[in-house]
Amino acid sequence: MHINDLDTPAVLIDLDIMERNLRRWQAHCDALGLANRPHIKTHKIPELARLQVGLGAKGITCQKLGEAEVMADAGLDDILITFNLIGAAKLARAVALARRVRLSVVCDNDVVAEGLSAAFAAAGLRLDVLVEVDTGAGRNGVQTPAEAVALAERLSNRSGIRFAGFMTYPPKGDVERPRAFLAEALALCRAKGLEAAVVSSGGTPDLWQASREGGVTEHRAGTYIFNDRMQMQAGSASLDDCAMTVLATVVSRPTHDRAILDCGSKSLAADPLGPGLGHGHILTYPEAVILRLNEEHGTVDLSRCIGRPEIGERVRVVPNHACVVTNLHDRLWGVRGERVEAQWPVAARGLTG
Amino acid sequence: MHINDLDTPAVLIDLDIMERNLRRWQAHCDALGLANRPHIKTHKIPELARLQVGLGAKGITCQKLGEAEVMADAGLDDILITFNLIGAAKLARAVALARRVRLSVVCDNDVVAEGLSAAFAAAGLRLDVLVEVDTGAGRNGVQTPAEAVALAERLSNRSGIRFAGFMTYPPKGDVERPRAFLAEALALCRAKGLEAAVVSSGGTPDLWQASREGGVTEHRAGTYIFNDRMQMQAGSASLDDCAMTVLATVVSRPTHDRAILDCGSKSLAADPLGPGLGHGHILTYPEAVILRLNEEHGTVDLSRCIGRPEIGERVRVVPNHACVVTNLHDRLWGVRGERVEAQWPVAARGLTG
Repeated sequence: MHINDLDTPAVLIDLDIMERNLRRWQAHCDALGLANRPHIKTHKIPELARLQVGLGAKGITCQKLGEAEVMADAGLDDILITFNLIGAAKLARAVALARRVRLSVVCDNDVVAEGLSAAFAAAGLRLDVLVEVDTGAGRNGVQTPAEAVALAERLSNRSGIRFAGFMTYPPKGDVERPRAFLAEALALCRAKGLEAAVVSSGGTPDLWQASREGGVTEHRAGTYIFNDRMQMQAGSASLDDCAMTVLATVVSRPTHDRAILDCGSKSLAADPLGPGLGHGHILTYPEAVILRLNEEHGTVDLSRCIGRPEIGERVRVVPNHACVVTNLHDRLWGVRGERVEAQWPVAARGLTG
Repeated sequence: MHINDLDTPAVLIDLDIMERNLRRWQAHCDALGLANRPHIKTHKIPELARLQVGLGAKGITCQKLGEAEVMADAGLDDILITFNLIGAAKLARAVALARRVRLSVVCDNDVVAEGLSAAFAAAGLRLDVLVEVDTGAGRNGVQTPAEAVALAERLSNRSGIRFAGFMTYPPKGDVERPRAFLAEALALCRAKGLEAAVVSSGGTPDLWQASREGGVTEHRAGTYIFNDRMQMQAGSASLDDCAMTVLATVVSRPTHDRAILDCGSKSLAADPLGPGLGHGHILTYPEAVILRLNEEHGTVDLSRCIGRPEIGERVRVVPNHACVVTNLHDRLWGVRGERVEAQWPVAARGLTG
């Protein structure tokens, strides 16, 4: 099948670029001696997770139980969930999941620790728990190395769970602060006789600065499989590294300088890149700016373009943020050149918790 | 079932508020003698479309074929698709759809007109087509009344289609310009002996200024069924009119002034409301600001709050934009007070074209 046989909008993944992205990052991890634990939130597709593991990934990262359950169903057997699990329903699901895969989770407070401990002790299991630390991103996480190690100590005194190390989602553009935080936490652990077997860092923006400094043992990157304009902005990818494009049709040319695409915020997502940077990069009209998204309309400013598209013409748009695009669609299409080679249902989308 | 039996995140629809919203707008349309043709993009749920028609709506509006097909499957039989249809695949689907429902579509250029004409003439059908006009919104649409009527004339000379009137999505906050545009187009039609049976306007932001002035015969509103913070900002709804909330759990309290919710951009969508206004309104903590969304995290600034939520506490968040929230979820829950009364699959989400 040729890509022109697909109806629009459709999300295309260039397989050559994707495979190169996967291989390059795996080789980089191997050279550093870092475990690669890719985050599947970017693709939510079991086949692609299996490909990552086949190329050498140690296991996978999921952001919620629903994703992990779908991946376990597909045979992925080493899963880290990087989100605090709370409530009886989720704890029961986590116990069921831990009976069939090597599961580990994170925790940054005693409420979560208590829930995990009670559920896993009652099940006669022992769950590996990483203490999540806030190394500057300002999201979840214990605020200081001393508090992190105090929580680690409390975890290790509970039944049903085992302190397994630390996890952080580092701030973009700052590799020093996380390393200093982690190194200090590890030193405090050693002083107390606590073993932190895993020190997990993550993110794609600072991918190529990843190292084992600070005691890091593994890296969780998600977007590197597809890349997008945010990664280009962060300097971790070039346009040639962007495997995902949204195939769209020009449905209207109301004025000389305006084109309307049949992809809006329900296809491209509204995540902004910055003032004037628009909502995607059109490969064949690089000077065009996708000014505004309505739900099914993309309004394009052509005023800086030399050539201008005709009504009915198809274009390919590199999105701002690949992970949220995947989450809007029920399937992605794997293409090699202009030939369609694969169709993947986005099996882990739309799930609660 | 009680709402506390639902796992989070979950999208709740307050049935009392929704029903009041539907009744109030239908009564307003009836009093004005305006046909009510609600846009189903906001809910994408056949049961709710049937409820709208049951209360007096003349038919429904869909933004794409996939939505219309799902609605037709559920027995909705008068459907306007307000989007240019292009390409063989979509035209074949449109013909199949027109064989089973009263279908009408829009068109703002000759490429679309030619495609519709060829497909419907070959099928031995005649499709009602509204000329889409740009009355200031800067999206699709013919730019002047004279050009609109010229296109109407060309439509009426084609086989397979019938010029049926005009359609506009008016600019927010400007009711005068669309009325003047439409009145002029209608006068030109009369001069040329063209009949514009339908003049369709739309949008929720200026809902309560809707009227028959300018020759308008019907109004397409979508968001009014649920309402959201964008409608509050536009002045068309108050907080008490917002039927949709996202039920979320506080999963972390890393600092005194920070809470993390388990709803991020994959639950609330990233559509911005404006600087400092955040990504949602937390009912029980109205001074809280949802500062930032990651995919599964909502980072909340509590610094202006008197009370502060505890870890594990559940909150309800009024989203910025209801329509894109629906599109992210596989089901919505209908609740009356705290009792869950209905579960609706979002049947028309995730569809191509």
